Amino acid sequence: MIREVAELKIKPGEEEAFVAAVAEAVPHFRAARGCKSMRLERVVEAPEIFRLIVIWETLENHMVDFRESDGFQAWRGLVGGFFAEPPKVDHSEVALVGFE
Amino acid sequence: MIREVAELKIKPGEEEAFVAAVAEAVPHFRAARGCKSMRLERVVEAPEIFRLIVIWETLENHMVDFRESDGFQAWRGLVGGFFAEPPKVDHSEVALVGFE
Repeated sequence: MIREVAELKIKPGEEEAFVAAVAEAVPHFRAARGCKSMRLERVVEAPEIFRLIVIWETLENHMVDFRESDGFQAWRGLVGGFFAEPPKVDHSEVALVGFE
Repeated sequence: MIREVAELKIKPGEEEAFVAAVAEAVPHFRAARGCKSMRLERVVEAPEIFRLIVIWETLENHMVDFRESDGFQAWRGLVGGFFAEPPKVDHSEVALVGFE
């Protein structure tokens, strides 16, 4: 499993419309190959910063299958206009589960 | 619920010992007031970067209860020597659950 974290800085005053646009984009993630879950977090100390957290089966499911799909174009079409700067995207893997 | 994300850059070559020290520190999180889960992630694109992700019932459970506890001192005693630079810590809240 691969955790995509996309840090998204949103234009001032557009946060609510951005969250609504993300909600509209959910079906594109649900339909994506290897996409297991998708969630949006908002940073307490910097409320203009959101983090899109997507769990993929493999890195390729995100970087190849999704990035080259119509779903990715639709996602960017819905939310790209809200970005105050280019998204910062990386991936992580579990190193240790302490407890859940 | 509050998600603490602590980004930890680890000294080169000490990653394995760091993960073992985090494992040793798990009981201090398990015993902490309001601590719901604790996990360590490692960044694929920058494997010297780890993210400690801790779910707390409230911000105060982390910033007051834990930070002022013996458990925090024990945690820092176990892992502080592995940090290549000071941790970057913030908190986030769920803005939208797409699907799980």
